[in-house]
Amino acid sequence: MAILVVGSVAFDAIETPSGRRDRCLGGAATYFSLAASNFTSVRVIGVVGEDFGPEEESVLTRRQIDTRGIEHVPGKSFFWSGSYMKNLNEAQTLNTELNVFQSFSPKIPPEYQDSEYLFLANIDPLLQEDVRRKMPRVKMVCGDTMNYWIKDHADNLARVLKGLDVLLINDGEAKMLAKDNNLLSAAQKVLDMGPKALVVKHGEYGATAFFGSHSFSGGDGAVTVPFRAPALPLAEVVDPTGAGDSFAGGFFGYIASQPALTPAVFRRAMFYGGVMGSFAVERFGTERLQNLQPKEIEERFALFRQLSHLD
Amino acid sequence: MAILVVGSVAFDAIETPSGRRDRCLGGAATYFSLAASNFTSVRVIGVVGEDFGPEEESVLTRRQIDTRGIEHVPGKSFFWSGSYMKNLNEAQTLNTELNVFQSFSPKIPPEYQDSEYLFLANIDPLLQEDVRRKMPRVKMVCGDTMNYWIKDHADNLARVLKGLDVLLINDGEAKMLAKDNNLLSAAQKVLDMGPKALVVKHGEYGATAFFGSHSFSGGDGAVTVPFRAPALPLAEVVDPTGAGDSFAGGFFGYIASQPALTPAVFRRAMFYGGVMGSFAVERFGTERLQNLQPKEIEERFALFRQLSHLD
Repeated sequence: MAILVVGSVAFDAIETPSGRRDRCLGGAATYFSLAASNFTSVRVIGVVGEDFGPEEESVLTRRQIDTRGIEHVPGKSFFWSGSYMKNLNEAQTLNTELNVFQSFSPKIPPEYQDSEYLFLANIDPLLQEDVRRKMPRVKMVCGDTMNYWIKDHADNLARVLKGLDVLLINDGEAKMLAKDNNLLSAAQKVLDMGPKALVVKHGEYGATAFFGSHSFSGGDGAVTVPFRAPALPLAEVVDPTGAGDSFAGGFFGYIASQPALTPAVFRRAMFYGGVMGSFAVERFGTERLQNLQPKEIEERFALFRQLSHLD
Repeated sequence: MAILVVGSVAFDAIETPSGRRDRCLGGAATYFSLAASNFTSVRVIGVVGEDFGPEEESVLTRRQIDTRGIEHVPGKSFFWSGSYMKNLNEAQTLNTELNVFQSFSPKIPPEYQDSEYLFLANIDPLLQEDVRRKMPRVKMVCGDTMNYWIKDHADNLARVLKGLDVLLINDGEAKMLAKDNNLLSAAQKVLDMGPKALVVKHGEYGATAFFGSHSFSGGDGAVTVPFRAPALPLAEVVDPTGAGDSFAGGFFGYIASQPALTPAVFRRAMFYGGVMGSFAVERFGTERLQNLQPKEIEERFALFRQLSHLD
């Protein structure tokens, strides 16, 4: 079943203790699509400038990602530059140039209309809301956001949250959104804002899913106990950029590949999220995700199980 | 099989966002013993002053903890006062009075000589070494330490580490000990210092066990993949004091209750550690641990499994 993702397609300049890259293909929609493409078909909506050529496009199309929704306009693509020299767990933004993204107005190609799954990557909640409205018949919607929208665009974000099945954010964002420093009570407050489930990403400590009182259609019973998926302890995190988007891609890609969203499917999706995040950070940018093999993914899934299961 | 524990028996004054207590029975050996007593018989070595009376002693003896190794001397017991008002994850020490602990010289009663398991709680490495030497025939030794000994008593600590089967410390301590900020490579460096296994406690994110190239006797094969046990998301952490010692008590108590230390037993022990830590923080001091029922422990163990297992 196809996932439609709307979000940024960008170029990144990144420095980490392992080295630096002046120009990597990046952006939330790119990481998400590459990760999800291992599980299901993916369609991208985004905007790029003249610096995004056939070489960049082929990174996506080689993975059978549908790029017909990537609009090409005059100018330069979204550019982000960040450093992890001080802290591998949190990027220090050195520069952000919105460029063509500034006037991004998502257009949905007719071929995308039958998408059953929708991922709203971290962009202006007004755009998230717009795309959500244009896709009224999707079966499931997941979304991301960040501190900037939580702080300064709370009302717009609140409307997006009401329409989400799953919100995927990190610890700090969840606590900021709920104005509560305890993870569990913060999660309950976020769930009261609309999402049926909340996935909180803890970086090197994995991720926790919290469930509201709504149940998912097709489920095999209501889930109320949170679920914790591990992260893989890695000897070297080469570049943390895109780990969260890759998690989302593995998570949602796996769900979209399954006939129904049962609690067991949700739990496995959390593991596949962790698996894709663990691959993403092993190399710079999307390098590791570009050539992943199904066998590698299944081996790592087995490792995640071994890492966390009693028997 | 009996565990002998050497460590502090103390009084604590604690303030947290949930309230305050001016005088709780505390100390690492107390938390450890109460937690471990749910699984096996426990014998304590420590020192107390005249303020430690029959009422305090009965907290331990009611749980069948052998207190004959607690030496009573003139003066006041170890006193610690701490605040968690700023940060629930890290105590701010307001006051430490060593009192009778200052001249503590552990003496092992003849009745304790046949103990098969030894836990060296967080005390001066010289004392840990001394007790270890006096118990040459124990089957397994676990130990704890803290930043103070790591920084200023490194040579003494190094000798203790060589004799340990399992070292249990937290993230910050592991990284400080290894002088390495990456958890996995820090763990490998710590394992090179002697312990056969390292358990790193992550507070609200659970704990990870790392294994060296040595295997445990009685094991069903060498373990090399780390193991991650979850922590329970709690709506209110009333008092974090003693969580780590309670983890150690659950972990080591379960191991001592089993006929052999297999990888499966080690993994279950990690879960029981998390279970006991989760109980400890639900009330002030040792209040919650004093009256725990076996049924509550098994229910929570099942919850930890549900929280982390795919099926």
